[in-house]
Amino acid sequence: MILTGSHILSVEQFERADIERIFQVADAMAPYALRRKVTRVLEGAILGNMFFEPSTRTRISFGCAFNLLGGEVRETTGFESSAIAKGESLYDTARVLSGFSDVICMRHPAEGSVAEFAEASRVPVLNGGDGANEHPSQALLDLYTIRKELGSKNRGIDGLRIALIGDLKFGRTVHSLCKLLRLFSDVHITLVSPTELAMPEHIVEEMRTAGHTVVVTEDLTQSITNVDIAYSTRIQEERFASKAEADVYRGRFRLNQSIYTQYCEPNTVIMHPLPRDSRAEANELDNDLNHNPNLAIFRQADNGVLVRMALFALVLDVVDQVDKYARDVNWYNSLRTL
Amino acid sequence: MILTGSHILSVEQFERADIERIFQVADAMAPYALRRKVTRVLEGAILGNMFFEPSTRTRISFGCAFNLLGGEVRETTGFESSAIAKGESLYDTARVLSGFSDVICMRHPAEGSVAEFAEASRVPVLNGGDGANEHPSQALLDLYTIRKELGSKNRGIDGLRIALIGDLKFGRTVHSLCKLLRLFSDVHITLVSPTELAMPEHIVEEMRTAGHTVVVTEDLTQSITNVDIAYSTRIQEERFASKAEADVYRGRFRLNQSIYTQYCEPNTVIMHPLPRDSRAEANELDNDLNHNPNLAIFRQADNGVLVRMALFALVLDVVDQVDKYARDVNWYNSLRTL
Amino acid sequence: MILTGSHILSVEQFERADIERIFQVADAMAPYALRRKVTRVLEGAILGNMFFEPSTRTRISFGCAFNLLGGEVRETTGFESSAIAKGESLYDTARVLSGFSDVICMRHPAEGSVAEFAEASRVPVLNGGDGANEHPSQALLDLYTIRKELGSKNRGIDGLRIALIGDLKFGRTVHSLCKLLRLFSDVHITLVSPTELAMPEHIVEEMRTAGHTVVVTEDLTQSITNVDIAYSTRIQEERFASKAEADVYRGRFRLNQSIYTQYCEPNTVIMHPLPRDSRAEANELDNDLNHNPNLAIFRQADNGVLVRMALFALVLDVVDQVDKYARDVNWYNSLRTL
Repeated sequence: MILTGSHILSVEQFERADIERIFQVADAMAPYALRRKVTRVLEGAILGNMFFEPSTRTRISFGCAFNLLGGEVRETTGFESSAIAKGESLYDTARVLSGFSDVICMRHPAEGSVAEFAEASRVPVLNGGDGANEHPSQALLDLYTIRKELGSKNRGIDGLRIALIGDLKFGRTVHSLCKLLRLFSDVHITLVSPTELAMPEHIVEEMRTAGHTVVVTEDLTQSITNVDIAYSTRIQEERFASKAEADVYRGRFRLNQSIYTQYCEPNTVIMHPLPRDSRAEANELDNDLNHNPNLAIFRQADNGVLVRMALFALVLDVVDQVDKYARDVNWYNSLRTL
Repeated sequence: MILTGSHILSVEQFERADIERIFQVADAMAPYALRRKVTRVLEGAILGNMFFEPSTRTRISFGCAFNLLGGEVRETTGFESSAIAKGESLYDTARVLSGFSDVICMRHPAEGSVAEFAEASRVPVLNGGDGANEHPSQALLDLYTIRKELGSKNRGIDGLRIALIGDLKFGRTVHSLCKLLRLFSDVHITLVSPTELAMPEHIVEEMRTAGHTVVVTEDLTQSITNVDIAYSTRIQEERFASKAEADVYRGRFRLNQSIYTQYCEPNTVIMHPLPRDSRAEANELDNDLNHNPNLAIFRQADNGVLVRMALFALVLDVVDQVDKYARDVNWYNSLRTL
Repeated sequence: MILTGSHILSVEQFERADIERIFQVADAMAPYALRRKVTRVLEGAILGNMFFEPSTRTRISFGCAFNLLGGEVRETTGFESSAIAKGESLYDTARVLSGFSDVICMRHPAEGSVAEFAEASRVPVLNGGDGANEHPSQALLDLYTIRKELGSKNRGIDGLRIALIGDLKFGRTVHSLCKLLRLFSDVHITLVSPTELAMPEHIVEEMRTAGHTVVVTEDLTQSITNVDIAYSTRIQEERFASKAEADVYRGRFRLNQSIYTQYCEPNTVIMHPLPRDSRAEANELDNDLNHNPNLAIFRQADNGVLVRMALFALVLDVVDQVDKYARDVNWYNSLRTL
């Protein structure tokens, strides 16, 4: 089956059929993520959740996804890397840790480290982020969110109109999303950033080669007038000569409710990889958007659990058995919305 | 039902009926806490155990309580608050994390932070301590312990005689306990502390308004002669001008076996919120009390698991189903006493 | 039954019959460690995995072993020892934590601390390493590996020929292994180290008193010519006057594929407690041995899970019930080898 026994290391490894299968399985996980049902399909299986760099939400999202399939989680959180500090190789670490677990999720600050680790692992490895390089489950959950938000309007990813806003130079999230979008057709992408933080030229080229329309601009209000998705990212102070200069730039790429009302089509969906900066002088998405029903940033995080459940179920080849080991539950959950 | 879907943020939120219901449910949890039985009632449910400030025993107590109901625990331990460090609001953190869990326990150093978090959460939040403000499950387990210790003597909380000893100014534990005691009648409270560390006046007033008798004194041996409970707390060096001065004070509020034998009624129960200081020059409860059967300090910790199980079962509305998903177990447990 | 309700604190506590029983139970755990089956025998039981000093792999190995028996794990990782920092005694910590768990695994930097903790604990305690003192599960997994590797050649531990190589002065692993070997007969031990890092004389004497042959040498190539096992350990820079001097010594005790081919009997098994130093200038076992089928270092780590499962099952007296609560599983696991 697709992805059975595979490592998930990079968005580059996927064909369109893989993406569609992952999203189909993610859809099937909704009753479990919503706690309508609970499954024991991975009872006795262990996820090694190896975060050699801290990331609370990504770590917990992977852990929850595995728990929701009935498995157990053993983990590390990066502050105890004694073995690596003593000069142990990634090869040795991988050989040892893969003897404990049935699947490993790994985050590590060094680019390429997760792939090197995976090569020595005896079980499938999911890349939870290796420095500036890749974070494939984030890109998948972003694309899954786009599909789901548009799906409610009977639209698909083909023909998508999207604006990517903010720091497009260093944001690994938007790079990976662009790579995935190459698998679809007729996408119209508007890239909105200060020149200093523009999307790398080779990614722009790849998008055009894929047949997509790419527009580059510094004008936020123009760029969001006719898009399905406005995808915002953080502009970080440290990219600029001074805080004052950073503040000037950030001001120009900030979205709030009044700009949204004035310039966006109705139902334009607002996305962001999170965390967003909530300090008044720096926030790229104003808190006054919090009650805008098209703010999809928390649905993105929710969808991350579905996508990660799908990846685990596919890699361990239990998709067809999830329901077999299921039962209904009835704890209090009227507060929960997906 | 009482507490279903509620946040547990403050002892102020409880009526006497709530307290009695919580304690009744805690009693019903004993077979599970004693490992006579195991239940799967919360199978598939996830506790988000979010400790943004370390507290090993409180964190583990909540986690165990949830495991004993059949649920899973995902957690953080305060050393990886990258998102908050990057300027994320409690609102955003709450929206994201509450998408992963069915209930959240949160500790955070800032007063009021847990309530702010709870307001944005999509699932019930239990306050695991927010700075100097509240730690409601600790107050509940203290009161539950008092009830249980007196219950074995066919006494209830009404009519209780209790001495609170040590730092009554900064101890959030004793403040919360006093607030809960207002819900009962005819309590006789002796407050024993150095003047510098006296109970805040407004709490004394509230106790008197509730009809209780409050005596304020600096004389330890007098105060413990006719009480049911002697509740000791730590006197911390940093509250005084010098270590020497602190040592003088601490010496005057220290309880040991010989003082106990000389001044206390038989069966006076000794309590403490723990940790107690075990260094010879600072210990407020001498180690020579360790074999005194009325030393209830470890029973308090044990009771904490029962009370937290009760809170989870009530909030998630599964009290009536705990037994339905139960089976007997027979691992080795003759060492265990409650 | 053997070990029921016992603490596991030191290799000195074992008779030969204990060792043989532990290994027999470890053998029986293989179907579970290999994920052919999953058992729920310890459903509802909680391991308190208390690492007051970090050790990712030992911590995770214990945790996995407990999960594979169906139990839950609550843990701490040494960076939050607030209670100990506030002056709490090991006695108090033990009384409290043993109220939460059914069995505790503890690592602590201070020699003797785990035994002191165990004395106050209300549940069995497994020593996960107390400073330079003891790490009994490591010694057991080493001996179990020797037995298993020789077993495939129809040999037992009696009559074993083994070379211990490297830092034999400070390596608690090799000390404990020697102590266990006293329980067997006719062992031929070659001790290979710089004089500065020689095995303590009292251990050499104990081995001779047990009837074993002990040869002390500084010549690596000679010593490995006719042994069943070449057990290598790290030589640490800080034991020497300078890095340069350390490098000279390390060079003389380094094993690689060409030395192995030239000097060792066919099928000589290579062991190491891990982590090994993989830096080119320091590695005691060269990476070119990684594809030598007699390199048993990762099988040692794998065996650790079996041995720890056996210890838990024996201590909690569930050995005879493991199969009763079992079912087959069929997740993808063709990558996994033991």
